[in-house]
Parts: sequence; structure tokens; C-alpha cells
Amino acid sequence: MDENLLQFYKTYQANVRAYQFAMNVIYFDQATIAPKQGATYANEMMALLAGEHFSYATNPDHIANIEQLYAQSEDELLKKEIALRLRELHQISLLPKDVYVAFQKAISNSERCWEQAKAENNYELFKPHLLELIKKQKELLSYFTFEGSSYDYLLDQYQIGMNQEKYDRFFDEVKAKLVPLIQQIAKKQNLIDDSLLHQTFAIDKQQQFTEVLKDSLDIKKENCYLTTSVHPFTSFFSANDVRITTRYHEHNPMSAILATIHEYGHALYGLQTDKAYEGTTLADNIGFAMHESQSRLLENHIGRNKGFWQQNYPKLQDLYPEQLKDVTLDSFLAKLNIAKPSLIRIEADELTYPLHILIRYELEKQIFNDEIDLENLDVLWADKYEEYLGVRPQRFDEGILQDMHWSAAAFGYFPSYALGSAFSAQFYNTLQQQIDVEKVLANNDFATIADWLKENIHQYGAAKTFEEILESATGEQFNPTYYIHYLVKKYKNLYDIQ
Amino acid sequence: MDENLLQFYKTYQANVRAYQFAMNVIYFDQATIAPKQGATYANEMMALLAGEHFSYATNPDHIANIEQLYAQSEDELLKKEIALRLRELHQISLLPKDVYVAFQKAISNSERCWEQAKAENNYELFKPHLLELIKKQKELLSYFTFEGSSYDYLLDQYQIGMNQEKYDRFFDEVKAKLVPLIQQIAKKQNLIDDSLLHQTFAIDKQQQFTEVLKDSLDIKKENCYLTTSVHPFTSFFSANDVRITTRYHEHNPMSAILATIHEYGHALYGLQTDKAYEGTTLADNIGFAMHESQSRLLENHIGRNKGFWQQNYPKLQDLYPEQLKDVTLDSFLAKLNIAKPSLIRIEADELTYPLHILIRYELEKQIFNDEIDLENLDVLWADKYEEYLGVRPQRFDEGILQDMHWSAAAFGYFPSYALGSAFSAQFYNTLQQQIDVEKVLANNDFATIADWLKENIHQYGAAKTFEEILESATGEQFNPTYYIHYLVKKYKNLYDIQ
Repeated sequence: MDENLLQFYKTYQANVRAYQFAMNVIYFDQATIAPKQGATYANEMMALLAGEHFSYATNPDHIANIEQLYAQSEDELLKKEIALRLRELHQISLLPKDVYVAFQKAISNSERCWEQAKAENNYELFKPHLLELIKKQKELLSYFTFEGSSYDYLLDQYQIGMNQEKYDRFFDEVKAKLVPLIQQIAKKQNLIDDSLLHQTFAIDKQQQFTEVLKDSLDIKKENCYLTTSVHPFTSFFSANDVRITTRYHEHNPMSAILATIHEYGHALYGLQTDKAYEGTTLADNIGFAMHESQSRLLENHIGRNKGFWQQNYPKLQDLYPEQLKDVTLDSFLAKLNIAKPSLIRIEADELTYPLHILIRYELEKQIFNDEIDLENLDVLWADKYEEYLGVRPQRFDEGILQDMHWSAAAFGYFPSYALGSAFSAQFYNTLQQQIDVEKVLANNDFATIADWLKENIHQYGAAKTFEEILESATGEQFNPTYYIHYLVKKYKNLYDIQ
Repeated sequence: MDENLLQFYKTYQANVRAYQFAMNVIYFDQATIAPKQGATYANEMMALLAGEHFSYATNPDHIANIEQLYAQSEDELLKKEIALRLRELHQISLLPKDVYVAFQKAISNSERCWEQAKAENNYELFKPHLLELIKKQKELLSYFTFEGSSYDYLLDQYQIGMNQEKYDRFFDEVKAKLVPLIQQIAKKQNLIDDSLLHQTFAIDKQQQFTEVLKDSLDIKKENCYLTTSVHPFTSFFSANDVRITTRYHEHNPMSAILATIHEYGHALYGLQTDKAYEGTTLADNIGFAMHESQSRLLENHIGRNKGFWQQNYPKLQDLYPEQLKDVTLDSFLAKLNIAKPSLIRIEADELTYPLHILIRYELEKQIFNDEIDLENLDVLWADKYEEYLGVRPQRFDEGILQDMHWSAAAFGYFPSYALGSAFSAQFYNTLQQQIDVEKVLANNDFATIADWLKENIHQYGAAKTFEEILESATGEQFNPTYYIHYLVKKYKNLYDIQ
């Protein structure tokens, strides 16, 4: 192999990641602490950096060198890293630079506008941005070459190997098995009442409980910074530096708690990926369903686990003696696991959660198959909530404005949450055969679980496909039955249904 | 004028400032919230971006275009902006890229190491970085072309128009007039006792008082973000986005208060510079003495002003009723303005402050004139404190490790603090002839003062030289007598000396 070529590639990788790092840091700053009046300038700077990044990354000479290196290389791992890179470069290099930059700029502007629109419950403010992003996304797609439909292409971008047909099959099964159970529960008398978890919970105390969570999950300040933002998210700065955000609601303390645990699931994946992959596509291109499998695993299988709360519930009670004095651990766990159709995805229970995703999936399908009236997206959103969950948003911020994803043109991202949840149930099924999770958590020994996740999943980054990781970790191909069975069993048990 | 050339220049400006913005944001992130374990990677990324920035900025074709535009342009303001840019480019383009990048990388590494060294009071940890930076700074100087000595060149970098001869003259006058007064005060009986300001002041209450300061100085969250760091500093992100930091000491509440006011002096300068200059050298190259004149003006002439504390002292007393119950406003003001030789520059009183600077100035002169044993810098530092202020640091963190400047290779910066203080006294002399500052502040009307500063100083950015601004604002050339007279009068009065 040509040593100069390899040397070129190392420099190329390094420069590309320098641009990405810069844009990452600016994004994080803007989404967390940046003064509002600086947003316009920052967005301009982001667009310029995106342009410089684009010029450098897609320089035809560079791509030719990379292709040549790929052809010459016999190192399997290097070939994987390059293949993931070329996959992206071969598409993105089809774009004129100005189209690419205009898209990035539209995204930055839209993101900041969405924050304001959500804060003000003002869909009209955000709507032109959303429609513009959809238009621009379609324009971009017109430059790319791919098999299947536009939406197939987008789905594959978020998790390599996925398409509409596979998701349709998955969601059909979810719908067939879960909707009847949800309806059965809705008809029951004496439903679990969780109103005691919706009293006033002072936010400074919630922040104190976040410190308890950090302790319990070994969240270390040396490699993980935690702050707040409008919508919780995780940023990966490098192999030893991740940032997670949460947000506090006075009348729903579990929201911040579960969001923190969810985001730390992402963070832990990044921190436990083989450090040798730092700055390469093997650390970056893991796929969103795989990533959500880890955030959802922590959120649901750890954050709603009895052992976990045996350790931590007394500490929550100590902070809120008045609010929680009449709530026993078992009663708390029942309230925490309640199944109740609701409006906000990230606060949804496990059983109704996939329907929140199904709604978004169906809307996105219609958007990219040109089967929808874009003028009425907000109403169609509300209609679908009524259809699938029997609840209708009365406000935009609990309807179409609730999620940040569309404001960032992340079309095709949502389905990976449901798929990730299904992966997580399959992983968890194996995990609990090998480790007594409840007991381990009751002993405040989350490290044992983190080690298992590292060993079986995290370390590989994108060096293995999701199919390979599922197979090696659980002994079989992806099988949604684990997810369905887990939910059905859990909720029949909780609601005493035969 | 060639329109294409002008168009080129706009693109050039924009790309250069995108790199600068990215590096600014990364610097700020690293100095405030970044997890420690990510520092190595972040420093690498900074060095790569510095390299990309260097390649783009110093591209000979670009410089040739800029020179051509300068020759053709008849727009006076554009010529000023370009002249400031070429001044820098003509030097920096003499450097080999690898020398430039290695210097930037050494700075990033040194800055993070200094933080740790200061926290651990460990000079040995920092020493190799400091010596390396001095060596590298000298290496850089060997590439540049300039008249006068190396140190002359550095001084001019921080404030165009300054050199060793001018500073010598200035410091000689300072020394001649202030040292005898300091000695006179030291001999007095019944010195003012400020120990009541060094009781325990809980930090959460100090943070609450920062909110009072924000209110009082119209610090708006829409354009100014305030947080903490090891050493207080200001970052200028854009015309409408500045960041300031402070730090809290449990036994010295005035430290955080005066640091916040000082940094806001810088911030206000940036926020009040003509918005039309955003992203140009006219907003960026104001000069450090001019900048320090505004930070020192706020710190000393506002932050130690009787009217200011008539408004704010009762609020401080409310937060600390126990600590301050026996301290009247007048007694508080006397303690706040005490003259007492001390070890820490940023906590020094106004009278002894210039001697802290003189010490650094003399050391830097010796360093860059090769008249010093670099192995013993820490001891020489302590010796000078003993000589000029009669106090000797017993710890490195109250000696040579106290300031961040040398860790960033900012050699030649310190003298601008003293010069800036002298500018501020001259500005203040005129300001108080036109506005009854004490009364205005007692009425909680800082806006009137901010407007005066904008009108007479801030708006111009670097479109006027410091000589021109002093002349137009005060009616005469720079005259250090105002500074000396102000200090002598104030402290003779306070200490009842004839």
C-alpha cells in the first residue's frame, strides 16, 4: 500500500474532523447558553464553516485518493472506515456547494426559530421554516442516486439497512399487538392514578436529584458535562468528552429524570466505543436505531427498574418529603410505569410510545411520497393523535412543535426510536439471562451493566453492523417479538389482565 | 475600484472570521465547562483549525488581492480596515505554517496545564510550558521584520503606537509619585482594617448578588452570558454576543464583584462598537490599553463609587445581615478603597495596582532582552514583589501562577493594564465634568454613563487610534498626570495625609 496515500488520508480525516468538531461546539453552545442576539451571526459562521468543510471533504482529488486507498488496502477495519466515508461522500459530492450551504444555513435558522416558536406556542412562526426545509430536503434528494423511494433513502441514512418495507412490517406487528392491549387497559376501572407525581416539585431539588443520578450511573464530570436546553440531546465532542442536556418541569419530575437517563444512554455508548476509533467513521456512523437502543435501554430497563429505585427512591423522598410521604416504593413504581395515552412523546410510557413514533412515521412517509397537504400538517398531526391515542393536542407546543427533529431537517430519524426500543428489548432479554439486573441495581452496581453493554455492544462502534451486533450479543437476528412480548407481559401484569 | 476585488474581499473577511469564531467558541468552551478529559482532543482540533485558518488567511494570492484593493480603494474606512489586516498579515505570512501551528498548539496545551498547575499550586508542572512558550515566542520574533527591540514589537502588538521607551517614561513617573505615597501610608498608625470584608461569604449568596449587579449595570442575557472560570476573562463572539466570566472566593466577596464589573467593561465596549464594523478589524483590533481603559474605568470609577454603593450596598447587606450588620456604607467604602500592598494583581487596590504591572513589565523586558535567568523566574517574581510592595508570595498560586496571560503567550499584554488605567483616569476626568457620576449612579441610572462611553469612545472601535480618541473625548493628548493626580488626591484624602 502506498504510504503517501495513507499519510494523506490521516491528514484528510484530521481536517474533516476539525471542521466537524468546530460545528459541534458551536451547535452545542447555541442550543444551551448562547445569548439569543448572537444567533444570526453564529448561523452565518456555521454556514461558512459548513461550506469550507464541504469544499475540503468533497474535493475530487481527495475523493480519488480515498478511492485509490480503498482499492489498495487489505486492512479490513480501514476498509470499513473508508467504505462508510465514501458512502456519504459519493452522495454529498453530487451536490452543488451553494445548495449544500443553503441547506445547512436553513437548518441553523430553523433550529433557533423553533426554540422560540415552541416557547411561544406559535406554529405560524415555525411553519415557513418547516415547509422550506421539506422543500430543500426534497431538492437535495433530487441530486442523489439511490434505489427505492426518497423516504427509503432517508431511513437508510439514519440506520443503514432499513427501508420503508421493513419499517412497515415492523409497525404493522406493533400496531396489531399493542393497540388492542391499549384499548383493553383504557376500558379498565380503577386505573392507576399518577397525579401524585404531578404535584409541584421545586426545580432546585430536581437539580439536586440529578446529582444522585450522576452518582448512581457513574456519570463523571471528567468526561461528561450535563446542562439544560429546550429539548434534551447528546453531543459527542470526542472519545472522552460527551455533553448531555435535560430540562426541568415543575409538575413532572420524572421527565427530567428519565430524559437524563435516556441521554446518558447515548453518552455511555460514545464513551465506551473503542477509543482507537476516535475521530473516524467507526465512532461516528453507528446508526440512530442502534444509538436509541442504548438510550431507550437505560431509560426504560434501568430508569423504570425496581432495583434502581430501591436505591434511589428514598433519596427522592428525602428531597420531597411532603409530596411523596404517602407514596410507597411499589406505588411509585406503578405510577412510573403507568400506561396512559398522552400527547408528549418524550414523556410517554413504554406501551404507547411506539404509537407516538408510528404517527410521525406515517406523516413522514406521506410527506416524502407527496401524499399530504403540507399546509395542514399541524391538523393532520392532531388527527393522528386522536386516531391512534384518543387524545388531541390543544396547543402547538404539545403537538407538532414538541420535537426538535424536524426543525433540524432530521426527516427519517423518528422511526429509529421505535426500532431502537425493539432492539433494546432483545438486548435486555439476553442481558437479564446473564445478569440479575434488579439485584445488581439494588446494590448500586450499575458498572456491571455498563461493562456488559461495552463488551457486547458499545465497543464495536460502527465496525459491526446492527445485524452483526444483535446476532453476536443475543444469538439471533433482529426479532421484534421480544419487544412485543416484553410490553404485553409487563402491562398485562401491571393492569392485571389475563 | 474593481468590484470583483471587493467581492473577493468580503468572502475573504467572512471565511477568516468563521475560523476565528470557531476557535473563539472552542476556547470559551474549554475555559469554562469542557470536561477535562476532552482537552487533548480539543487542542488538536484547535491546532488544525489554526492551520486551516493560517493557510487561507496567508495565501499569497489572497494577500496580493488585498494589497491591490488597498491601492485602488478611496474609501477611508475600508483603507483603515485593510491596513490593520495587512499589518498583521505581513508579519504572520513570514512564518512557516508548521511553526505557526506548533505555537498555537503549545499555547492550547499550556493554557489547560496552567489551570491545573494553579489549582494544585504546582509551578514545576507549568514551568516547562512557560519556558517552551518563551522559546517559541522568540523563535517567532526571529521571522518578523520590525524596527526596535523584540519587546518593542510585542508592546506594539497589544497597543499600536506603544514601545519600551514610552512605557519606561510612563512607569518612571508612576514610580516616582506613587511609591513614596505608598510608603507614607504604610507608616501610618490606625490603618483602615478591612478584615470584616474577609469573613465567610457563602457563594450562593454571592451569585445572587451577581444578579443585582446585572440589574444595576443593565447586563442583558440577550447579548451577554456570564459564567465562571479559573481566571476571569471576556470573549467577543460577535457584535451582539459577548461572554464574561468571574470566579467566587468564599473569603473575599469583592473579588467576584469587581471582576464582574471589570469584565463587563470589556463587554460593553464590544457591544457598543458601531455594529457596522462587525466581523472587521475595526471591531477586533481596538488595542488592549484602550480595552483595559474601559474595564478599569468600570471596575474603579464605577465599582468603587459612592453613588453606586448607595444603591447596591443595602442589597449586599440584605444578603449578608450577619457579616455586614456593623459595617456602615462609609465604612464599607473605606474598606473597599483601602491601599494595602498585596500579592494578587486582580484583587489589588488602585494605588498599588500599577506596581503589580511594573513588576511584570520589568520581568518581560528582561525576558525578551535576554537579561534574565529563566530557570529562576518564580524567585525573581517573588523578589520583585518584596522590592516594590514589601510582600513576598509563599505559594506559587499567589505568585507567578496567578495570571493566565503568560500561559497564553500573551507577552507584552500586562503593561496595557497600567496604561489603560491611566487612560481611564483621563477619560473619567472629562466624564465627571459633564455628568454628575455619583448622583447618576445613586439614581441607578448607569445607562447615562454607558451612553457617554458609547458616544465618546466605544462606537469608534479601531476606526480611530487611541491618540485620536483621547484627543476627541478629553480635548488633549494622553497625559499621565490625570492618573497620578487622581490616585494621589484620592489616597491622601482617604488616609488623611497633607
